[in-house]
Amino acid sequence: MSTFETIGLIGRKGSHQVVDSLHALLALLEKRGCDLYIEEETATLVPDYSAQVVKKAELGQCCELVIVVGGDGSMLGAARTLSEANIPVLGVNRGSLGFLTDISPDEIEHRVAEVLDGKYTREERFLLDSVLSRGQHEIGHVDAMNEVVIHRGASLRMIEFGLYIDGQFVYSQRSDGLIISTPTGSTAYALSGGGPILHPGLDAIALVPMFPHTLTSRPIVVEGNSEIKLIMGDYAGGQPELSCDGQTHLALESGDVIHVRKKAQTLSLIHPLNHNYYETCRTKLGWGSRLA
Amino acid sequence: MSTFETIGLIGRKGSHQVVDSLHALLALLEKRGCDLYIEEETATLVPDYSAQVVKKAELGQCCELVIVVGGDGSMLGAARTLSEANIPVLGVNRGSLGFLTDISPDEIEHRVAEVLDGKYTREERFLLDSVLSRGQHEIGHVDAMNEVVIHRGASLRMIEFGLYIDGQFVYSQRSDGLIISTPTGSTAYALSGGGPILHPGLDAIALVPMFPHTLTSRPIVVEGNSEIKLIMGDYAGGQPELSCDGQTHLALESGDVIHVRKKAQTLSLIHPLNHNYYETCRTKLGWGSRLA
Amino acid sequence: MSTFETIGLIGRKGSHQVVDSLHALLALLEKRGCDLYIEEETATLVPDYSAQVVKKAELGQCCELVIVVGGDGSMLGAARTLSEANIPVLGVNRGSLGFLTDISPDEIEHRVAEVLDGKYTREERFLLDSVLSRGQHEIGHVDAMNEVVIHRGASLRMIEFGLYIDGQFVYSQRSDGLIISTPTGSTAYALSGGGPILHPGLDAIALVPMFPHTLTSRPIVVEGNSEIKLIMGDYAGGQPELSCDGQTHLALESGDVIHVRKKAQTLSLIHPLNHNYYETCRTKLGWGSRLA
Amino acid sequence: MSTFETIGLIGRKGSHQVVDSLHALLALLEKRGCDLYIEEETATLVPDYSAQVVKKAELGQCCELVIVVGGDGSMLGAARTLSEANIPVLGVNRGSLGFLTDISPDEIEHRVAEVLDGKYTREERFLLDSVLSRGQHEIGHVDAMNEVVIHRGASLRMIEFGLYIDGQFVYSQRSDGLIISTPTGSTAYALSGGGPILHPGLDAIALVPMFPHTLTSRPIVVEGNSEIKLIMGDYAGGQPELSCDGQTHLALESGDVIHVRKKAQTLSLIHPLNHNYYETCRTKLGWGSRLA
Repeated sequence: MSTFETIGLIGRKGSHQVVDSLHALLALLEKRGCDLYIEEETATLVPDYSAQVVKKAELGQCCELVIVVGGDGSMLGAARTLSEANIPVLGVNRGSLGFLTDISPDEIEHRVAEVLDGKYTREERFLLDSVLSRGQHEIGHVDAMNEVVIHRGASLRMIEFGLYIDGQFVYSQRSDGLIISTPTGSTAYALSGGGPILHPGLDAIALVPMFPHTLTSRPIVVEGNSEIKLIMGDYAGGQPELSCDGQTHLALESGDVIHVRKKAQTLSLIHPLNHNYYETCRTKLGWGSRLA
Repeated sequence: MSTFETIGLIGRKGSHQVVDSLHALLALLEKRGCDLYIEEETATLVPDYSAQVVKKAELGQCCELVIVVGGDGSMLGAARTLSEANIPVLGVNRGSLGFLTDISPDEIEHRVAEVLDGKYTREERFLLDSVLSRGQHEIGHVDAMNEVVIHRGASLRMIEFGLYIDGQFVYSQRSDGLIISTPTGSTAYALSGGGPILHPGLDAIALVPMFPHTLTSRPIVVEGNSEIKLIMGDYAGGQPELSCDGQTHLALESGDVIHVRKKAQTLSLIHPLNHNYYETCRTKLGWGSRLA
Repeated sequence: MSTFETIGLIGRKGSHQVVDSLHALLALLEKRGCDLYIEEETATLVPDYSAQVVKKAELGQCCELVIVVGGDGSMLGAARTLSEANIPVLGVNRGSLGFLTDISPDEIEHRVAEVLDGKYTREERFLLDSVLSRGQHEIGHVDAMNEVVIHRGASLRMIEFGLYIDGQFVYSQRSDGLIISTPTGSTAYALSGGGPILHPGLDAIALVPMFPHTLTSRPIVVEGNSEIKLIMGDYAGGQPELSCDGQTHLALESGDVIHVRKKAQTLSLIHPLNHNYYETCRTKLGWGSRLA
Repeated sequence: MSTFETIGLIGRKGSHQVVDSLHALLALLEKRGCDLYIEEETATLVPDYSAQVVKKAELGQCCELVIVVGGDGSMLGAARTLSEANIPVLGVNRGSLGFLTDISPDEIEHRVAEVLDGKYTREERFLLDSVLSRGQHEIGHVDAMNEVVIHRGASLRMIEFGLYIDGQFVYSQRSDGLIISTPTGSTAYALSGGGPILHPGLDAIALVPMFPHTLTSRPIVVEGNSEIKLIMGDYAGGQPELSCDGQTHLALESGDVIHVRKKAQTLSLIHPLNHNYYETCRTKLGWGSRLA
């Protein structure tokens, strides 16, 4: 694997642990003589360093690797921006293991150095592209790394929608909503909702109904290239929404059409060589460790 | 699509409806001048016909298409034999719609004629190959179209096993067992056990834990080419078993190793042109029909 | 059982079927010489009748029995008012069987006459009383016949709360919310959320977590007289709410305390003599009918 | 509460930890001058002590309190015997907290002494009585503290049965079986099967279907005094069984009738004063601890 010398840094605000890890990273990267770019908000967290300060969107233009310090949520925010530029991303967690941030603070010196030396695996994670149309107009276009959720919004009233996959009618459903999840998102909100765990190497999308009125409505897993379409039904009251990664939201109306499909660009996740997806599952989900 | 002229027939025993449908099929096939082969047990159901009688395993050698009359269970039995010969199979249900037998008795004349004329879609369904090893010896080798189940057998005592996927340790689990399901099997036993529905076009395998002691042990979906390995742990009492499609069974012992992977040969399922997988789901699972 | 002669009528607006059933009821009740009171909004649906028109809250003062025509939702609305007055209620569904409205439109003449003649069973259903306190002040007080729901409101951000039962700390939970359900509500929203069915004769309350972050957080069933307390944790953004029967809503803030307990007054549901709870379950949930 | 002076001891075989705890208990009890009875198999674990050795069934006649050292499984075995004699039972776990064995080995000296001094709470747990009838004959009669399970036995073939509660037909079900659980059993096998947690103070029975063919068949909770009846349907092959607490088993045949109801005698569980049921849940299920 190629080595990395021009490095971008993004850190989550509001945590002393993140600032500590940023200092550890900056010390390591300076010692190695790396070319450093810091995202502008992150720069305010480490004011003593004189690295080049850029906007998040510009990191993609100038770096070979971006290191994100924070939780999985920080990675989601960075991912949607960085996947456009096809820049690989390495995640350092701020204390507790994440599914996306798999380097622990105390491993920074050792593991990050290995990655910079080219000792890593690179994994492509796909994102979902969701387009909201009303009548003849496209009125919203948002990406998700974890999941697109169509949900009831503030009201407890069920919503109703029709679901189509690859042009075939699947069902009309009355429920609190539908989670459309990538393999990356399958261990996040979709898992709380009863969805299956999809291995990150699987090219598939999970559709997980939220509190469906019809008890036989169960999670469905379809091919990753499937074209998913929802048509919003009538509803009295309520403010249904389309949400991506729990971070961006669009209000929905009766008759709205939502298209969800795989995005052309992927996010390149960098893992240290000892990374094992199932070990992360065991740690975070409390699965049983090796037989005695 | 090519047309079919040499046709094999398999029917489930013990049902008047099956016999009626066999007569309807034979009348149609004779009228069209097809070359007919009847599986030997099926032949006893329709003794008045003078078609060529062969063993089930031989149907694969002499036919271009095999028509199975019965339920999904009859298809499972035929599938494991016919996939070896790569002969396409068409299913006629004996009264209630099946996931594999999608032609209704009253559609025989119309739909089967269309299929013979080349108006059909052909879908490949993969099977699972499971190999049981004890020490240095391979002591069993069985196929499954729906699912391979490792389970506690007669005893209510939990079994314990270690699971590995593509050489990576996943977890050790104490439970009633594990269902390893194809997309075809995902609407059968695995669904009762809380597994997701996998679209038949998805190249994936679902692993559904049965009554796991660890509540966070949830269904996992992995890539279809994954190599799945279980190592049976110690247990006091009990008679754990490996079962394929609920039809073949092997007794398991502590230390036994089970390898499950995709079989090289697939089963070619023939569907009439109007076939829609989700319509079968709606009918059998009671999902909501189209929005008003 | 006592007979009924002074009857109140409530009907759901917006349905021709309800109007038809109201006419059938009025014809029957007039023929029998009953003393009739119609709720004021319902009276606008049957303008040709000259019955006494009263407010919903007054029906409780002047009637021996109130008949509600509509769906289970109409019953919920009536129940919270009528339980205060301890007036029995009979439900006529508007076409499809309900759990609370168990007389079909075509049974009106026969079944309602039987009930008026004293041929019925009377069943007490308890309601939940929820009190919202902020600091030293009680700022809301609402009843629920089905369920009290504490939920995230419009935001997809999880809420966090501490749960106490009879003064004992149960857990702190991050989730979309918690459903606190009566047996009556156990076949409504709580069932969609994975809760158990509680027989109406059981004196118990079910607590069903909504999409809990901790996968081991499962439905809990406690004694009907339990005192349930939630303390709302901190949250960034979001507009959490307390909702009763999906019909009344209170906005929640960090530190708010919610007490939920059984209400002193019950709702008396009147059933025809042939009523069978499980038959309603079989019809509405598609359970298997009697063994052949 | 009364104090205890005549004490019986039961210990699980096959564990050094149990032997260590037995020694600690014997030292404490001798120092206090208690009158000691040891169950005969347990006596072989601590051969140096000269206490009176009796059969398990006799402990009930001669003791005021029986202390069981082991896991929840050891308690189940003792419970069915001791509930007949109405002797209270105290559980000492052999290393990991149990739902029934809530004194840790390192608390023996302190907590057991407190209990003997009368500082404890006493909780009644009910058992289930199951009677198997074939034709006119009662052919089996077994008790369960956790659960009665009617299940498919060794075969993977579904069984079919009709369920009646208090004489009302509930449903006919095709499934792997049915778990009929007490509140005590609700955190054991029934929980793995998707059943709700029933607080031990709740007078209720949970019916949890095992892998039901009908996806809408969900856990049902009924009043503790309900009379539950199952009639076994026809099945081809298979060896269905009735199992109690996973420890006693009866073979079932088509047409067999099983009556399950609450037993007249309860088991009196003794807890130290600081016992909190939900704390045990938090520890064993990993629920969130108190809000910061």
